[in-house]
Amino acid sequence: MSLGWLGGPNVAGQETGDGRPAVAWAIVIHGGAGGTAERLSEERRAAKLAGLRQVLEQGAARLSAGGEALDVVEHVVKLLEDDPQFNAGRGAVTTSDGRFELDAAIMDGRQRACGAVAGVQTVRNPIELARRVMERTPHVLLIGSGADQFAKEQQVTLVPQEYFAVPGINVPLPNSQSQLLHDRLEYYGTVGCVVRDTRGNLAAATSTGGLPGKRWGRIGDAPIIGAGTFADNESCAVSCTGVGEEFIRRAVAHEISAQLKYGGRSLEEAVRDVVHQQLPAKSGAVIAVDHAGRIAIDRNTVGLAWGAADSQGRNEVGL
Amino acid sequence: MSLGWLGGPNVAGQETGDGRPAVAWAIVIHGGAGGTAERLSEERRAAKLAGLRQVLEQGAARLSAGGEALDVVEHVVKLLEDDPQFNAGRGAVTTSDGRFELDAAIMDGRQRACGAVAGVQTVRNPIELARRVMERTPHVLLIGSGADQFAKEQQVTLVPQEYFAVPGINVPLPNSQSQLLHDRLEYYGTVGCVVRDTRGNLAAATSTGGLPGKRWGRIGDAPIIGAGTFADNESCAVSCTGVGEEFIRRAVAHEISAQLKYGGRSLEEAVRDVVHQQLPAKSGAVIAVDHAGRIAIDRNTVGLAWGAADSQGRNEVGL
Repeated sequence: MSLGWLGGPNVAGQETGDGRPAVAWAIVIHGGAGGTAERLSEERRAAKLAGLRQVLEQGAARLSAGGEALDVVEHVVKLLEDDPQFNAGRGAVTTSDGRFELDAAIMDGRQRACGAVAGVQTVRNPIELARRVMERTPHVLLIGSGADQFAKEQQVTLVPQEYFAVPGINVPLPNSQSQLLHDRLEYYGTVGCVVRDTRGNLAAATSTGGLPGKRWGRIGDAPIIGAGTFADNESCAVSCTGVGEEFIRRAVAHEISAQLKYGGRSLEEAVRDVVHQQLPAKSGAVIAVDHAGRIAIDRNTVGLAWGAADSQGRNEVGL
Repeated sequence: MSLGWLGGPNVAGQETGDGRPAVAWAIVIHGGAGGTAERLSEERRAAKLAGLRQVLEQGAARLSAGGEALDVVEHVVKLLEDDPQFNAGRGAVTTSDGRFELDAAIMDGRQRACGAVAGVQTVRNPIELARRVMERTPHVLLIGSGADQFAKEQQVTLVPQEYFAVPGINVPLPNSQSQLLHDRLEYYGTVGCVVRDTRGNLAAATSTGGLPGKRWGRIGDAPIIGAGTFADNESCAVSCTGVGEEFIRRAVAHEISAQLKYGGRSLEEAVRDVVHQQLPAKSGAVIAVDHAGRIAIDRNTVGLAWGAADSQGRNEVGL
């Protein structure tokens, strides 16, 4: 099911070369794939949609005011991390022994600068720490207690583990090893944001609590540049959600970029190919925006919490 | 400087489509880029070449006897991990506080199954643990103490940290943050192996002690599928060495595969483009083999410890 190009009137403007008007800015967000919206109470559904709408509006407002792509994706993902309805930051899922281990990545499409953290336990907003890695170290990926140590030195907001716990949201699951990954898709809730700003710059950010009941320091695709997160001004910005392992082995985010660059495919075609031809059924979803501000949203799961807006008047959310 | 297609007589055989005879099997190894061979004593150079030759011969012997690609890359990287002359396993470099934190990844080109570990401290052969992740968990990447815990459960050979220390080889460096990454290239010594077996299957494996003097749980490209390690029977198998951050942000290993698949480039052209057009000067090297057994070896550093052999009689090592 593709949600790309639905909605959004094509008002007059610069042509992009395929007959569609260019957009000044565009933003897409996701709050994770897999959950069946029908299983949520009417109240919970409404609250989740309201959460998505609020975050989307904040991002859109910043973009229309000339905000920079990198700042917008960071801000938007921070808001989603702070919203306990999503599996990132507060409200994240727990490991098999009931702890919170968080992953995040951010990437700037201009120079392909990027930063990521994996397995952090003390940082309120992992996406903020990922950006510090990008801007204040020569590194890309910091993990575990070392990343928490870096957080301390950077004076980002530290919180006790209890901060992430939200009654009724992150219920610890039994040992995960006896279950197939796909059985737990229900619980995926990674958050992400991709943006094209008015300068034509792209950025992507993804944050997650990972797999419910994960153990052994398992890391998914979210903090892996090229797998769950990628941005390149020459092609597109991508953020993924789903069974991280399937996204890593296909380098999904970079694969979409490469199909644009070398395969002559449109963003929509590339995203559709990866989601429906390459990934296994029920494994996840992708949001993406290309250099001309075209949006693609696609999933092979039943549900996807998403939102999309652009300067042409598109403004919608869904579950 | 490309070392692809040098040496190795083109004896009669099946054509690959570009006029070159098909090879039954091919293997390439590396022992890291950056070190200037001239700075080593004559004895050390001879010992390093002998080490490469011995490992290459063992891999070639297994392949010519019908060994499977995946088994051969694991075996070869284990040998390189055990050889203290290279920055992986025994003889690895230390972190800023004098510890050993090891990373490794392995990938099977048949189904793109893969496994990786990062920041492990107790495992004699990280590449063996990476294969266990691939075959005995639903996961791809395990990090830190969780990965060490998994190692314990899997009964792979555990060793105390002192095992990795080799007098005269892994001298702790001062705090790394004050230095540019490139200044330390001298010390890069990641090891890797790519193979095409007689069945036409590809595999890749990479293992490293990472950046000398690293801190904050810094992880480079070696354990990142798509960055430092990738294998896909439809395109090629790739293993990288160098400034990991530069390889991650370009998803180098997957980029080479994508140029073959979508860009119509040969392996040699794709490797040359990435090493000389995309990566910054002096940032590293790539070894690769494609589905037809063609070999590409390229570097933008002064030195590269490498070896290559195939069923056509190619058999050479260099520094």
